[in-house]
Amino acid sequence: MTIREAEKEDFDSIWPIFREIVTAGETYAYAVDTTKEQAFQIWFEAPRKTYVFEEEGNILGTYFLKTNQAGPGSHVCNCGYMVASTARGRGLATAMCEHSQEVARALGYKAMQFNFVASSNAGAVRLWSKLGFETVGRLPNAFNHPVLGYVDALVMYKWL
Amino acid sequence: MTIREAEKEDFDSIWPIFREIVTAGETYAYAVDTTKEQAFQIWFEAPRKTYVFEEEGNILGTYFLKTNQAGPGSHVCNCGYMVASTARGRGLATAMCEHSQEVARALGYKAMQFNFVASSNAGAVRLWSKLGFETVGRLPNAFNHPVLGYVDALVMYKWL
Repeated sequence: MTIREAEKEDFDSIWPIFREIVTAGETYAYAVDTTKEQAFQIWFEAPRKTYVFEEEGNILGTYFLKTNQAGPGSHVCNCGYMVASTARGRGLATAMCEHSQEVARALGYKAMQFNFVASSNAGAVRLWSKLGFETVGRLPNAFNHPVLGYVDALVMYKWL
Repeated sequence: MTIREAEKEDFDSIWPIFREIVTAGETYAYAVDTTKEQAFQIWFEAPRKTYVFEEEGNILGTYFLKTNQAGPGSHVCNCGYMVASTARGRGLATAMCEHSQEVARALGYKAMQFNFVASSNAGAVRLWSKLGFETVGRLPNAFNHPVLGYVDALVMYKWL
């Protein structure tokens, strides 16, 4: 297994992971009907870096890293992580998050921020907390969950 | 005086206001060397709506409104407001913020969020608080102020 920078050709393998997660509408603030072309823009073109988690030639996870705010906020980065449903519970998110923090430091970022973590996504909240992210904000009813309705979204933050 | 939707031709009047505020680097998370073309994209093309505050043919203030997060977050909007230095202290920001809340409700938004208010910008924090915005997040040292160095940025939020 390896975590490496993604090539454009990897997007055909990233897309099923992206589509499954975004269609569920439970974790990411992307439209549930995001097209493959839009997903490529979101995950590949807009970010500064995109990585994949690969095992025996199969892409099982992916993350992006980008600058969260321009100008006076440009020392803080933002990342998004996705793991294929078939590969969950094996520590891929932890591995990718730790990897992304190394990349962020190498690029000169001082902090990492997650802008919009659904409070209902208990696994993610627990994991980011364990990895040193502090919950620094709570946005009341900002996340419209397909089953639970409006739930709070959290802002999580770590000085690197 | 009136607050009306901006036309593309208004941007020549908006640009000096934008440039003065952004060059100071004290309040907005835009690069201090943002070009006029980039500013047009930021203030005019990316947002859903752009308005100007006009008095006797002079544009003294401007704001934009956009969706803050896509998909499960798309019921929350975001606005940015700018007032010419020559017109400060006359209630333009209050008038524009109240106007923007009406526009937001009319467009179907449920809440309004300010993502990145420099905690050093005491006037803005006081004003948004007075207008019903709650400080729901504090991002430690997320704003690099040109004089004060790293200061906290606030997330402010109002259910409409």
